[in-house]
Amino acid sequence: MRQAARKHSFNNSVQLKSQRRQQRTVIDQKWQCASNVDSLEQLDTFHRAIRPYLCLAQVFGMMPLANVLSNDPQLVKFQLRSSGTFFSMLFLLLGGFKTMRLTAKLIEGGINAKNIVGVVFFSSGMIICLNFISLARGWSRLIVPWNGIDIIMLFPPYAPTKRSLRFKLLITGCTLGCLTLAEHCLYYASSYYNYSMQFLNCQANVTRVPLRGYMNKEFAGFFDNMPYNFIFIFYSFFLNFTFTFIWNFMDTFIILISIGLAQRFQQFATRVLSLANRHVTDAVWHELRMHHILLCELMDLVEANMSHIVLLSCLNNIYFICNKLLTIFTKLRYPINYAYFWYSLLFLLGRTCTVFMCASRIHEASLLPLEVLSMVPSDHWTEEVQRFTHQVNNQFIGLSGSRLFYLTRQSFFGMMATLVYYEFMLLQLDAKNNNDLPALCV
Amino acid sequence: MRQAARKHSFNNSVQLKSQRRQQRTVIDQKWQCASNVDSLEQLDTFHRAIRPYLCLAQVFGMMPLANVLSNDPQLVKFQLRSSGTFFSMLFLLLGGFKTMRLTAKLIEGGINAKNIVGVVFFSSGMIICLNFISLARGWSRLIVPWNGIDIIMLFPPYAPTKRSLRFKLLITGCTLGCLTLAEHCLYYASSYYNYSMQFLNCQANVTRVPLRGYMNKEFAGFFDNMPYNFIFIFYSFFLNFTFTFIWNFMDTFIILISIGLAQRFQQFATRVLSLANRHVTDAVWHELRMHHILLCELMDLVEANMSHIVLLSCLNNIYFICNKLLTIFTKLRYPINYAYFWYSLLFLLGRTCTVFMCASRIHEASLLPLEVLSMVPSDHWTEEVQRFTHQVNNQFIGLSGSRLFYLTRQSFFGMMATLVYYEFMLLQLDAKNNNDLPALCV
Amino acid sequence: MRQAARKHSFNNSVQLKSQRRQQRTVIDQKWQCASNVDSLEQLDTFHRAIRPYLCLAQVFGMMPLANVLSNDPQLVKFQLRSSGTFFSMLFLLLGGFKTMRLTAKLIEGGINAKNIVGVVFFSSGMIICLNFISLARGWSRLIVPWNGIDIIMLFPPYAPTKRSLRFKLLITGCTLGCLTLAEHCLYYASSYYNYSMQFLNCQANVTRVPLRGYMNKEFAGFFDNMPYNFIFIFYSFFLNFTFTFIWNFMDTFIILISIGLAQRFQQFATRVLSLANRHVTDAVWHELRMHHILLCELMDLVEANMSHIVLLSCLNNIYFICNKLLTIFTKLRYPINYAYFWYSLLFLLGRTCTVFMCASRIHEASLLPLEVLSMVPSDHWTEEVQRFTHQVNNQFIGLSGSRLFYLTRQSFFGMMATLVYYEFMLLQLDAKNNNDLPALCV
Amino acid sequence: MRQAARKHSFNNSVQLKSQRRQQRTVIDQKWQCASNVDSLEQLDTFHRAIRPYLCLAQVFGMMPLANVLSNDPQLVKFQLRSSGTFFSMLFLLLGGFKTMRLTAKLIEGGINAKNIVGVVFFSSGMIICLNFISLARGWSRLIVPWNGIDIIMLFPPYAPTKRSLRFKLLITGCTLGCLTLAEHCLYYASSYYNYSMQFLNCQANVTRVPLRGYMNKEFAGFFDNMPYNFIFIFYSFFLNFTFTFIWNFMDTFIILISIGLAQRFQQFATRVLSLANRHVTDAVWHELRMHHILLCELMDLVEANMSHIVLLSCLNNIYFICNKLLTIFTKLRYPINYAYFWYSLLFLLGRTCTVFMCASRIHEASLLPLEVLSMVPSDHWTEEVQRFTHQVNNQFIGLSGSRLFYLTRQSFFGMMATLVYYEFMLLQLDAKNNNDLPALCV
Repeated sequence: MRQAARKHSFNNSVQLKSQRRQQRTVIDQKWQCASNVDSLEQLDTFHRAIRPYLCLAQVFGMMPLANVLSNDPQLVKFQLRSSGTFFSMLFLLLGGFKTMRLTAKLIEGGINAKNIVGVVFFSSGMIICLNFISLARGWSRLIVPWNGIDIIMLFPPYAPTKRSLRFKLLITGCTLGCLTLAEHCLYYASSYYNYSMQFLNCQANVTRVPLRGYMNKEFAGFFDNMPYNFIFIFYSFFLNFTFTFIWNFMDTFIILISIGLAQRFQQFATRVLSLANRHVTDAVWHELRMHHILLCELMDLVEANMSHIVLLSCLNNIYFICNKLLTIFTKLRYPINYAYFWYSLLFLLGRTCTVFMCASRIHEASLLPLEVLSMVPSDHWTEEVQRFTHQVNNQFIGLSGSRLFYLTRQSFFGMMATLVYYEFMLLQLDAKNNNDLPALCV
Repeated sequence: MRQAARKHSFNNSVQLKSQRRQQRTVIDQKWQCASNVDSLEQLDTFHRAIRPYLCLAQVFGMMPLANVLSNDPQLVKFQLRSSGTFFSMLFLLLGGFKTMRLTAKLIEGGINAKNIVGVVFFSSGMIICLNFISLARGWSRLIVPWNGIDIIMLFPPYAPTKRSLRFKLLITGCTLGCLTLAEHCLYYASSYYNYSMQFLNCQANVTRVPLRGYMNKEFAGFFDNMPYNFIFIFYSFFLNFTFTFIWNFMDTFIILISIGLAQRFQQFATRVLSLANRHVTDAVWHELRMHHILLCELMDLVEANMSHIVLLSCLNNIYFICNKLLTIFTKLRYPINYAYFWYSLLFLLGRTCTVFMCASRIHEASLLPLEVLSMVPSDHWTEEVQRFTHQVNNQFIGLSGSRLFYLTRQSFFGMMATLVYYEFMLLQLDAKNNNDLPALCV
Repeated sequence: MRQAARKHSFNNSVQLKSQRRQQRTVIDQKWQCASNVDSLEQLDTFHRAIRPYLCLAQVFGMMPLANVLSNDPQLVKFQLRSSGTFFSMLFLLLGGFKTMRLTAKLIEGGINAKNIVGVVFFSSGMIICLNFISLARGWSRLIVPWNGIDIIMLFPPYAPTKRSLRFKLLITGCTLGCLTLAEHCLYYASSYYNYSMQFLNCQANVTRVPLRGYMNKEFAGFFDNMPYNFIFIFYSFFLNFTFTFIWNFMDTFIILISIGLAQRFQQFATRVLSLANRHVTDAVWHELRMHHILLCELMDLVEANMSHIVLLSCLNNIYFICNKLLTIFTKLRYPINYAYFWYSLLFLLGRTCTVFMCASRIHEASLLPLEVLSMVPSDHWTEEVQRFTHQVNNQFIGLSGSRLFYLTRQSFFGMMATLVYYEFMLLQLDAKNNNDLPALCV
Repeated sequence: MRQAARKHSFNNSVQLKSQRRQQRTVIDQKWQCASNVDSLEQLDTFHRAIRPYLCLAQVFGMMPLANVLSNDPQLVKFQLRSSGTFFSMLFLLLGGFKTMRLTAKLIEGGINAKNIVGVVFFSSGMIICLNFISLARGWSRLIVPWNGIDIIMLFPPYAPTKRSLRFKLLITGCTLGCLTLAEHCLYYASSYYNYSMQFLNCQANVTRVPLRGYMNKEFAGFFDNMPYNFIFIFYSFFLNFTFTFIWNFMDTFIILISIGLAQRFQQFATRVLSLANRHVTDAVWHELRMHHILLCELMDLVEANMSHIVLLSCLNNIYFICNKLLTIFTKLRYPINYAYFWYSLLFLLGRTCTVFMCASRIHEASLLPLEVLSMVPSDHWTEEVQRFTHQVNNQFIGLSGSRLFYLTRQSFFGMMATLVYYEFMLLQLDAKNNNDLPALCV
């Protein structure tokens, strides 16, 4: 049977020669890319696509990488003495200061489920930041092999994708960024409107709302202790904004990584699917299997570096969704309060859903080649094909949260069902509290 | 070993010749069917069996398909300019108007878990309708391959089924239709009886119940704003009826599709089972494996088109069951109220159960061939048989709700256990409310 | 490699001849057993072991089988015109009458979670009885193949078991029977003590407790309508006893069936395990695989006939455990009340646990051969062994509750965790009720 | 293909000869170890590493083993007449006495969720102790094969581990021991501080806190009945300490066993991983597979002896975590109370988490060889490799709690989610109770 296959391939030797010539050209190109950084810049690698986000993260002290703008992924590595590390340290210092002040205030005033949110928000921001710094330390060990696979997958026989990875990541990132900004602005609008309405209604003879009072209320009595000047106003706003950014960036980053991986698995599947009903030599199957192993190893690498961040993101999202849902039946005073509440709740739910859906696409794409494999005629059902089938069948490919759970559609469904439980219970625990509006002026 | 098998088959060559003649006749017949539409009409295809339901759905604006009565499945396709699309648009307009009016009323009067039901009912009706329109757009891509498989499965060597698919679908559809109608009538009877008893008891000197008052109460104060004439009465009744129809049609449709698919998998299994303890050539195993792949591809196609509808149906059913159960301990005034409540609750539960049981039958039928495969003697245990076994073993075949969950008996059990949780919690949240009867006259 | 194996076996041909002679003797014995009913009686078949229980069930109207005492399992079959059917009909009539009277009383007095228990107890008894009648109808289709497998498994090369199946079933059945009887007596003792203490304390000048009053209270006001004579007292006691018997018999029967099946799988595993590190011919592996298929088919047959009963048993047990747990914090008046409550609760929990543990032993025994299979040296790793391994690996063997859940240790754990949830919630719903003792005399 | 492999190996015959010489040396060494006990002492066996803990357990009456300090694992066995058994009996007697006294007090005073803790603590201590005695009875059947595998794994070709098993177990054990001691001391500090503050505040004119009063309060009115002397003080302290020790030792022991097993699986994986991309003969694969089977058999042995202890440990931890969490919102009087509460809660959570993480590492290490197996080129993809792959793929390796659940990361996640449910419900049930501080002086 195998001899027949060899004869067949022998007859096609003329065709093969031209094929080989093409292949050699492709290999030459690949080598050039791998060695020459400038030609690498022409390629739609994940490194090129994620670069703007790394820059952004560096500004906010999250990814202290040197040469973050470089074309060559090997140069982008963690350096202790760099501007990135300085930003990170500065940011951790400022954030730590704020967190400690909030904690101190909390302990003074007594803890309950509602005033603890602020401390959780800031301290989880710190933990996220530390996790990203740890990711930055291993970044070069992750991106260099990824780049290697990118170079393989960006040349024939892999078909180019309809839309470039860079474009996809840009669209996704910008959309999420805009939605985040809108949520942030709506938050200030809602809280400022509340303050000004209260001020105007309760204080007779006043027509102008003092900004300072608002600032002091918003930033937890910050200006009671600090001089009220531009620097501290900026510091307050900046810190709030940064933590919101961090909080959103974590989810965005998981989404971007997922898109990048899913794209490669999709491309791999597309190539395998294009082989349906065609005569495929054992060498090609071997090559495919090896590429599959490369992809799996990349997946393991990403998993090892990202799984803590994924766990953190899920726990974070569940906490904040539960917290938002807790006040779902609370009456609010003004339409803008409702607008903010519903917008931010839906945004939170949508973001969590997007994380799961994007991550589960990796797993789904990894299973696509099975269809073609079952169509391979028995004459060409060699050991290579069999092993390839086994490999695809038996290995779970996908992101996980520290392997405590896997990001699949089914686990998302389970998590949502659990969230509904928790919500019911929280509502019950909260049922005693009076949900009516308190008096406007005290 | 394989040579021995060949020799054996050589000895049987005379027998085989006559077999081949038969096969050729069958193939000719098949070709005729595939080409000639009239002879197609004689066959018990799924297209012929589902046709009446498509017509019905079109009347209610759900499946805007052109040539819905045609014998040829290729002609039944979505057309933008057709009576079906017109019906759909009209219906969405009227439904949208009603939904908006209800929402407006709700926001005015304040939301709670009980008065939100109407809005959920109507808006879910709209979403269902949009999903079915989307299904209609892909209908021809679904029914044409299905018809192809039907033509294969309706000729020998596949045995005909005891009862035709058309008959099964007719019986199932009519039963569900009658039960739905009975529920709808009982609803009006219960609500009219309540209204008339209240009217007669509370208003002295009256002996006749004014229909207009009932209409106004039933249709949420519709006739306060609209003139009270035959057209608007008809419109009100029609809209209520249509939405009830849509709501029930979704579940019915999933059941019908499941029966159609399960039948084919059952037929396939029957053929494989008939091969038990017989000498089967590799060619036959190959043919069976290819047919199995065809069936799996059909399953994937159905899954891709239906999974959103399945998800919607399950969420819908869970919501309405929870809602009904919430009032299970509420005291009712008249026996007819009890009759309606229990009939509608049991109908809802039974319908949900039927959806799951029918859909899970697909999965169960798909596993039947395994028994025969383990009985194949080792002499005939070729690579084909091995691959077939692997295929049947490793592939999950069955309907899912957007792949968030699969419709199996075990997931049904889990869903019921979850429903009991939710119910307990809802009862607790509701425990504060007074469940006694309110005063009859206010 | 395979040739070498053949040579090896050729050398052993002298040994084999004597083996074959032995085998022929065994086969002759088997044939004799299968044909001669009296010699069958000597064997430790499941039919012989379960026979006493079938008799017992027949007396209580549960298994209307003709010739239930016959040695020949083929004669034990359902007959419409037999004493068994008469008993069943009579019992269903009397039970139905009682159930209807209870239901009528319940509807008059108003339903709540506590007084519904009686109706659930009696109506579930009716449903159990109907399920067992349905099992009786298919009994001969089940026991005849089982007997066939028993005949195979009771002769060499299968090793005899340390304790006979009959002995095991006898011990298990008697133990459960005694515990049930003790529970039943304790129930009467507790309720009679309560009645008499109340009577003596509240009615002055009385020293003798009237039995009639107790009877009337115990049997739900039965003697208000009926004349108070010996027949009706007997009828009341008998009905109570019968339903308690039915309720316990269901679980006992599942346990007995499980022990019977687990024994066979265990014997099969023992034979396979005895082959460890020995040269085993392909023919033996083939025979083992065929026997494994026979066992699996028997399992399927049992599953098809029993799965509804298993489901019923589990739901029943969960309901009554929840119900008992609900009153766990209620204060009781006398030590005998505590004794009855704790004994019956622990008995219920223990019985449920035993059902799961016995049933899960089937699954566990079915996996034992895997160990030996992995030890087979590569020289003897033929296709037969490979297929056998696959078969054992990929098929789930075990009892299920209508395939909604499988009786394994893990599902038992899950069920217990769920029971704890339900219990917590029920306690909460019940928390408002006053759990103090009511006044003794009203 | 196989011939080519043989030729290849023939060419390397010179190399092989020297290899074989090395191997023979290793085998000689192994034999020496197995026969000579003193040279065994040089090796980093699990027996040597766990020995100190066995001694410790013996002192506290948990592991009544004779010759516990012996170098030869075969001599360490359960003996009825030994000092260990005497300690155990004495301890069980004293513990049983204390438990009965507590139970009697409890029944007198009325049961509730809070005062039942003491009885649960002491009776679970007794059950743990009995389980460990049962483990001691089977200890020699467990440690002798383990030692055999240790001897195999401590010589080439298995690489030595970076840190010795003895060191790892020492560090882990000491850390856990210190944390336990700190918890125990903090408990006394907190309770003594409470008592003395209450005494000083409520009793006027007193400056010295009487120790006797504290003793009496701490040990549940023990000195009301007993003479107040040194022996009974010591007895009280010793019993409290012993039960705390038992309670912590159980978890520690599971952790130590897990580390020991995980180390061997890790070493095995390291050896397989070192074979990546190298030519490996079938004989080596066979040897690896056999070693894998040996490891699996060891795992089964550990599982059979430990699974009840694992179940007990998990149920115990869940109960005490729930109990601690129940009082999480209770206000405490002094900072030291808070310190003790939070320290002991976090310690409990951390210990439970460590048990799961260590145990799950066994499973994870057992899957590592798969990576290399998928890299084996098709030329060397022999039946041995294939079977090895299947074995690793299809067998679940890991500790379980009586097979009711498996100790994996995913089950840990599920258990934590369940714990959150229970906690919510307990908080609700507890919500009615007043969580404010009671008056200091009564």
